[in-house]
Amino acid sequence: MRIALDAMGGDNAPYEMVMGAVEALTRESDFEVLLVGRQSEIEAVLDAENPDIDRERLPILHAEDVVGMDESPVDALRKKKDNSISKALGAVRQGAADAFVSAGNTGAAVGGATLFWKLIPGVKRAGIAVPLGTRGNSSIVIDVGANIHCKPRHLLHYGMMASIYCEHVLGQENPKIALLNIGSEDSKGNTLVKETQQLFEGAPLNFIGHCEGGDIFEKKADVVVCEGFVGNVVLKVSEGLAETMHSQFEEIVGGHVSNDENVGMAQHIREFRRATDYAEIGGGALLGVNGICIIAHGRSGRRAISNAISLAAKFVRAEAPKKIEAGVDALRNE
Amino acid sequence: MRIALDAMGGDNAPYEMVMGAVEALTRESDFEVLLVGRQSEIEAVLDAENPDIDRERLPILHAEDVVGMDESPVDALRKKKDNSISKALGAVRQGAADAFVSAGNTGAAVGGATLFWKLIPGVKRAGIAVPLGTRGNSSIVIDVGANIHCKPRHLLHYGMMASIYCEHVLGQENPKIALLNIGSEDSKGNTLVKETQQLFEGAPLNFIGHCEGGDIFEKKADVVVCEGFVGNVVLKVSEGLAETMHSQFEEIVGGHVSNDENVGMAQHIREFRRATDYAEIGGGALLGVNGICIIAHGRSGRRAISNAISLAAKFVRAEAPKKIEAGVDALRNE
Repeated sequence: MRIALDAMGGDNAPYEMVMGAVEALTRESDFEVLLVGRQSEIEAVLDAENPDIDRERLPILHAEDVVGMDESPVDALRKKKDNSISKALGAVRQGAADAFVSAGNTGAAVGGATLFWKLIPGVKRAGIAVPLGTRGNSSIVIDVGANIHCKPRHLLHYGMMASIYCEHVLGQENPKIALLNIGSEDSKGNTLVKETQQLFEGAPLNFIGHCEGGDIFEKKADVVVCEGFVGNVVLKVSEGLAETMHSQFEEIVGGHVSNDENVGMAQHIREFRRATDYAEIGGGALLGVNGICIIAHGRSGRRAISNAISLAAKFVRAEAPKKIEAGVDALRNE
Repeated sequence: MRIALDAMGGDNAPYEMVMGAVEALTRESDFEVLLVGRQSEIEAVLDAENPDIDRERLPILHAEDVVGMDESPVDALRKKKDNSISKALGAVRQGAADAFVSAGNTGAAVGGATLFWKLIPGVKRAGIAVPLGTRGNSSIVIDVGANIHCKPRHLLHYGMMASIYCEHVLGQENPKIALLNIGSEDSKGNTLVKETQQLFEGAPLNFIGHCEGGDIFEKKADVVVCEGFVGNVVLKVSEGLAETMHSQFEEIVGGHVSNDENVGMAQHIREFRRATDYAEIGGGALLGVNGICIIAHGRSGRRAISNAISLAAKFVRAEAPKKIEAGVDALRNE
């Protein structure tokens, strides 16, 4: 198995990307990572930091251009033909890699994957699915920003696709799907929510009804479906608040550990940070395209990248796209 | 000054409501609290817990009916004529009280205030404004769920009204207003956001453009404007995540304090909880109605209620409704 990594994408590229690839290879042995980007820059990191790593498991595919984080995706993909995102997506399409991971420009990754790989037959819009919550207690939220002009059928497909992710990639049996709403009663909600609810109720899925924003963290459902604008706000609010609470925590509690000469506490503090750290998650999965595309946070460091690569490997092992295609077919024949 | 409190609203009514009123009176001396609800139940709490309190500052207005937390607001207001929410709203309308505080059924409080007090001339929809963030670092988010069928003009008024709240009630000079979006570039966002942005850009307000979900906690803006569905999700996600992080914190760090024989740490832990606790906030303000209405969380305990009462008193001192009326006028004459 081979995972193509956009070595030039993200705020900390290529350094943390290459280091993340090395970390993933060290942890798991059944795949290679294809590093896509400027060969000399990638090799410089490997030479300096990992001279002993087995280079056969870290092939490089040179790409001269880099898509900037804030660049217009459409312009970038059109003008920078030799960019690392397009090159990596091409490698997957040609069978030279089995999945794609990027911490780069999200719009370019989503747009590129949709353009070069096409959507799975029957799917009208791709969506990004991200697990949110604390360790061991998270729900998958879909869509977190790929599609802000959602129709009820897009949301139905999102629920089904994330349910397959949950079941086959994460091993969660018969995942529960809920629709994000602003109250648990059926009378609540906007038109999109009400129309989508009717579709879910008529579909062969384990739909449990509505859930509210706070329920995401109580795992009331395994999959929480919402349109991309709302989902993106949920994602950013969660990340922002978690970060703010971490800073407050460091300021108020963390800084006093050494003063108090309490070394045992330092361990608990590290554990708390880890349990509530979004970097543990690895990334979002773009569902609905003909291929596996994991989108990591722009600020990803090596740990987040290695987790994103591991997540991509799980998708490959589970043959997720094939199962999603069968799922869409099943919904169509209802 | 007299604040009318719905003594029967909320999960912990009437006990915590009455205790919250007592706490507020003990803290501040320039107002009375009119306790609205079942006289015998209210008196039982006062007799048992606060026999020495000055009853002249705690008058009671009897109301026989109670609106259930999950009851349909429309049905409840129509059928239960003698309910504590309607009675308290009536007291304010007749001048027997200057503001209303409730932790009860939000729909009934919003619907009742709109019905009995009417909207401020020129305002088309009332909105709920809630400060979100950690202590000393919060933005006011409006609307968090009063109006899920928002038009650009509603959002413009929300921004203006919350700006007056910020300036005159919280003492923040020339508050910055931002529109919640899923990216900071102008090209991003749905139709509602794009149309609303144009209105803000043409208005005499300190509009600074877009902000993302995470920016709420970094105080990029003093006021963050969004439609009620999104805002309600933001509120619930924030509360839910903060609660989850507190539990994780207690489980991982808090429980080890005594084991580690570290008493100094206990103080920091309490401080962290307080700094990131949503009960500190007190409640949301319903803006756009002819009167002052503070909506506290259904789970409010005495501290949240006393803070909500203090917030109501600040609105009265600032003569906020009059200033909002002038603000709407100014926008109309643009």
